Amino acid sequence: MATEAHDVVDLIRTKRDRGTLSTAQIDWLIDAYTRGYVADEQMSALAMAILLNGMSRDEIRDLTLAMIASGERMDFSGLGKPTVDKHSTGGVGDKITLPLMPLVASFGVAVPQLSGRGLGHTGGTLDKLESIPGWRASLSNEEMFDQLRDVGGVICAAGSGLAPADKKLYALRDITGTVEAIPLIASSIMSKKIAEGTDSLVLDVKFGSGAFMQDIARSRELAQTMVDLGNDAGVRTTALLTNMNVPLGLAIGNANEVRESVEVLAGGGPADVVELTLALASEMLRLAGQPDADVAEALRDGRAMDTWNRVIRAQGGDPTAPLPVARETTTVSAPRSGVVLRQDALPFGIAAWRLGAGRARAQDAVQHAAGIDLLVKPGDTVVEGQPIFTLSADEPSRFARALESLEGAWEIGDASDYVAGDPLVAERIG
Amino acid sequence: MATEAHDVVDLIRTKRDRGTLSTAQIDWLIDAYTRGYVADEQMSALAMAILLNGMSRDEIRDLTLAMIASGERMDFSGLGKPTVDKHSTGGVGDKITLPLMPLVASFGVAVPQLSGRGLGHTGGTLDKLESIPGWRASLSNEEMFDQLRDVGGVICAAGSGLAPADKKLYALRDITGTVEAIPLIASSIMSKKIAEGTDSLVLDVKFGSGAFMQDIARSRELAQTMVDLGNDAGVRTTALLTNMNVPLGLAIGNANEVRESVEVLAGGGPADVVELTLALASEMLRLAGQPDADVAEALRDGRAMDTWNRVIRAQGGDPTAPLPVARETTTVSAPRSGVVLRQDALPFGIAAWRLGAGRARAQDAVQHAAGIDLLVKPGDTVVEGQPIFTLSADEPSRFARALESLEGAWEIGDASDYVAGDPLVAERIG
Repeated sequence: MATEAHDVVDLIRTKRDRGTLSTAQIDWLIDAYTRGYVADEQMSALAMAILLNGMSRDEIRDLTLAMIASGERMDFSGLGKPTVDKHSTGGVGDKITLPLMPLVASFGVAVPQLSGRGLGHTGGTLDKLESIPGWRASLSNEEMFDQLRDVGGVICAAGSGLAPADKKLYALRDITGTVEAIPLIASSIMSKKIAEGTDSLVLDVKFGSGAFMQDIARSRELAQTMVDLGNDAGVRTTALLTNMNVPLGLAIGNANEVRESVEVLAGGGPADVVELTLALASEMLRLAGQPDADVAEALRDGRAMDTWNRVIRAQGGDPTAPLPVARETTTVSAPRSGVVLRQDALPFGIAAWRLGAGRARAQDAVQHAAGIDLLVKPGDTVVEGQPIFTLSADEPSRFARALESLEGAWEIGDASDYVAGDPLVAERIG
Repeated sequence: MATEAHDVVDLIRTKRDRGTLSTAQIDWLIDAYTRGYVADEQMSALAMAILLNGMSRDEIRDLTLAMIASGERMDFSGLGKPTVDKHSTGGVGDKITLPLMPLVASFGVAVPQLSGRGLGHTGGTLDKLESIPGWRASLSNEEMFDQLRDVGGVICAAGSGLAPADKKLYALRDITGTVEAIPLIASSIMSKKIAEGTDSLVLDVKFGSGAFMQDIARSRELAQTMVDLGNDAGVRTTALLTNMNVPLGLAIGNANEVRESVEVLAGGGPADVVELTLALASEMLRLAGQPDADVAEALRDGRAMDTWNRVIRAQGGDPTAPLPVARETTTVSAPRSGVVLRQDALPFGIAAWRLGAGRARAQDAVQHAAGIDLLVKPGDTVVEGQPIFTLSADEPSRFARALESLEGAWEIGDASDYVAGDPLVAERIG
């Protein structure tokens, strides 16, 4: 065994005993973990100690920088225009990246939107876009650069070269009950975003039943940690705390979320999707030096749609091709007349996942046409027998378990019992 | 992947969030870990959560019983006499098992002393005894039973069949900074002792600089946890908290500790070794139903020595054969006249280990003649130039690093500066 500069058991003990790790210790740790000298058993014990004892702002910054240093770092400074990106912590029906990227790019700003695939009840942006015939998620760094220069926007898979230490650590956290550690979540997200080389970044940090963090206080802590991290690393970063108690929009799935996004780009679409798209676009353009950009106008006048069509074509997709349609559908109708009181995001997300829109394991494929279309939203008046949502799947055997997860997930009652939900955008941080 | 009764990530999360694991969850966990279904990464995250959040008395009992259930359980009820065992948490110069086992056995009580090998600065009982020519540590269960019936005492290696889950977990804790968790220490020690099938058990829980736990409060907590565990499982259990700030006796090593033990059995030996041997023997015999046993008399009249000779012969050893002598020795002399103020146990233990008396890795061999012989103890008056300790090693190259670890480890000063140490036996628990 080679002599190493640090003893990993000493590092674990330091964190276990509420001590602080030095920059040199963290640099060594992440490098040694990437090399395989620090074992997964050791990293998982340390991750639990971090979850329970926390990390200082300096430690989180050091951890993030060490993860960035484990891989390549992109550089868009040669584009000659500002770059701005958005990251969402994920929610049910969250297709905002799709209308947002072309909308912001239509203002002459480069939007390098490196995205992931979904796992569990929150969908992945790449999964949604892959329902467009011909569209491909993988671009080389050169293709990405050229498309940002020529079209202005790109949505593609993050290359495996960015923060490989994070990839290894994330897989470990998933099986060891250490996903929920704020220092680890923040450094995981921000290491990839900083390595991606964006000038500015807007974070959409969700809270509520369908979010990763249900509690707004924890979401605020995560948002503040990431905003600090980004700004410390030279990336102008702000965050919006947004409500994920109710599914976003009417479509939950893949192809149907693309359809809904195109409606927004055409100047229509559900009010909540439009509201969040405009709020994030304004924030991104403010960071990119255009505080007065009229983003609503860019949806109305077709500029955002033009950019969308160019981006999809640049990545091999045909924006005019029909999107896949599910083989089977089943519709649920209102059991009584009244007002829709609730639609809980989490069970609707799980139901869409059970229909085939999501995956249980990273290697599984998604069924692009599977999902749920809501026909009403909380506050809407319905009459008995009126269809309220439609489930779509390629295999009818999936309906039973999906419907099971929707039991108790929604409620129709008297208009006097309806309480309007919290605002969609609750707070701005940074 | 087969469907399992419990989800390991849920169990980890429960402990992480300060919840309580049920008996069924702990039984499943230890069985699944033994089978390899629960991964080392997961067990190490859980171990860290246990270290930081603790376990209830019921959880510790369940964990101990589950570890016992992972292997075989011995049964000495057919011996027709009471069985009583002793366990020490380990210290520098701790050879007490050697005189204690024959002393207690000489009162007609069976003493099944399953022991281990040393790792790090605290020596192992089996390592010490293996310096006796011919003596063998491995006995079958039948040989052990026969020797307990015929001779009354046995010191042998614990078979790998006892609590295999503990063995696997211990190796993991060693590399993940989770050794120091009291619930895990207590269940590790007690699972083996309860599986061994003894009726009664006396624990020698050390505190001080040379002990595993330096702080008496932590030692008390560990002792109380183990006493509760033993009694809950039907083993009459008590503990003595004993001082390990100073090496025990004058010999630190292997062959030299056997020599010192034989001196005690012959009615002589250092006062502290005699005191602790008598205290533990009285406690063991009290639990075995002989509260009035005159243990000091059994050392004086040769009964204990007779049993020692019979035990060593029964295990193939020749108690009259010369013990190994080191090839090289070096003696340190008093740099001034005065009184010995201090001898710190930990650095003396590390020095003996560096001389070859201990091992760094489980697969290493020890050098039986290596070690340290103290020629004075704290409180003794010395004159300048008087030899104060002798180092022995087979390889003279080892002296330099051993002497290095002794720098500052002892002190000679004015008689007026001498403060007598704390009592050797500080408390009795249970």
